[in-house]
Amino acid sequence: MTETSRPLLLLSNDDGFQAKGIQCLIETLRPIADLIVVAPDGPRSGSSAAITSICPIQVKCLTEGDGLKLYSCSGTPTDCVKIALHSFVPRVPDMVIGGINHGDNSSVNVHYSGTMGVVIEGCLKGIPSVGFSLCNHDADADFKPAYPYIRRIVEEVLEKGLPKGTCLNVNFPDTPKLKGVRVCRQTDGVWTQEYVPCNHPRGGAYFWMTGVYQNDEPEAEDTDHWALDHGYVAITPTKIDVTDYELKKQIESWNLHV
Amino acid sequence: MTETSRPLLLLSNDDGFQAKGIQCLIETLRPIADLIVVAPDGPRSGSSAAITSICPIQVKCLTEGDGLKLYSCSGTPTDCVKIALHSFVPRVPDMVIGGINHGDNSSVNVHYSGTMGVVIEGCLKGIPSVGFSLCNHDADADFKPAYPYIRRIVEEVLEKGLPKGTCLNVNFPDTPKLKGVRVCRQTDGVWTQEYVPCNHPRGGAYFWMTGVYQNDEPEAEDTDHWALDHGYVAITPTKIDVTDYELKKQIESWNLHV
Repeated sequence: MTETSRPLLLLSNDDGFQAKGIQCLIETLRPIADLIVVAPDGPRSGSSAAITSICPIQVKCLTEGDGLKLYSCSGTPTDCVKIALHSFVPRVPDMVIGGINHGDNSSVNVHYSGTMGVVIEGCLKGIPSVGFSLCNHDADADFKPAYPYIRRIVEEVLEKGLPKGTCLNVNFPDTPKLKGVRVCRQTDGVWTQEYVPCNHPRGGAYFWMTGVYQNDEPEAEDTDHWALDHGYVAITPTKIDVTDYELKKQIESWNLHV
Repeated sequence: MTETSRPLLLLSNDDGFQAKGIQCLIETLRPIADLIVVAPDGPRSGSSAAITSICPIQVKCLTEGDGLKLYSCSGTPTDCVKIALHSFVPRVPDMVIGGINHGDNSSVNVHYSGTMGVVIEGCLKGIPSVGFSLCNHDADADFKPAYPYIRRIVEEVLEKGLPKGTCLNVNFPDTPKLKGVRVCRQTDGVWTQEYVPCNHPRGGAYFWMTGVYQNDEPEAEDTDHWALDHGYVAITPTKIDVTDYELKKQIESWNLHV
């Protein structure tokens, strides 16, 4: 990659480098930046911020040229960002970007999301970081309506930066006509009916994860889920300091002497 | 498990059911509660809140009787809590407890921690949830000094509860003489030098995760890392709403029209 004045973006995802979502992200951002892509060598949905320490990881360069370097990595989404920053970037990237995810990462899904694992890792390393997700799990989902928003958000973050310790979780509803952007808070909700038991042919049960999402505040117009339900792009600013400062004060009066 | 007035606690971890840490947790809590343990069938360190959706999970009952039921699970720590609550508890447990982890989960480690994956899942399900971790990775680490604090903290949480959406991340320094408890905030720090490259005998590199933790505020006496460095038990109240409300206000003035 030659030295240019173009921004340098590090991309990863949790659906693997072959996924349409990250290929679309590359297509969207290539005109405005040099890209280094280090993405898992296969699907890693639901990886959260998992890291691999028990076995080593391997990285292969698959594509190089015209402002794009693409690597596949045997590890998790978080591993991809870590190893990229450690060994595969020519300088600290201007942004770390996760996605475009095949599936919704709003509300409590932020905790399970490998896309947000990418973004949280970028943020932990002090780099402005943004995750993009589409509310459609299909391998052939239509990411095109998101393109202009993704470019606008990336340009705005490149210009304005993000405060240390905060990243953006951006979700797109699955609709061809997006109504605009809403800046949101994380919706309070819960997954229910999460497993389907099946019988193993040799005896014993096994369980497939499934689930029904229950929105505990469907009328709250400031939430990400509300925005998505009503056709808006949801931007949820997300902190990596997860301390509950209010409870911290209260617990100081507890009796914890032994 | 017979109906009693004793509390019911759901235990899991990320080191696997055979680990000394969870066996010590069982030993500590058995006198004061009925226990259901659903723990991974092997090591799952660094699992964060990862979930398994690509393949099914299996659960085996290994021990039953005298107020203890122990299951092993083929999934992640978060899977363990989900499947336990879905299929293996006789009623909603009074608490979900993760640990005792072999290793420090303070500061930014909260994001990678499978122990905290357990705790965050319990919290997401509306159950008071606490994670216990010892700053020692050894398989034969000495967990005994933590016992009285674990019991006191569990009893206090059973009595007082925790606010919806907040759990506790409790870390113990590796010392036989604990100085008492400090209620803390998450330390600002970063992992550096995270990989060691090695040469594969058939050519090509592979990478082992390692790392040096850099504390970015070593003098801050209200942080969890300071408490641990000075011989105190660190309790860090931890939120599952990760919205950055301050940035939310600021971003509303950005130009995000397309």
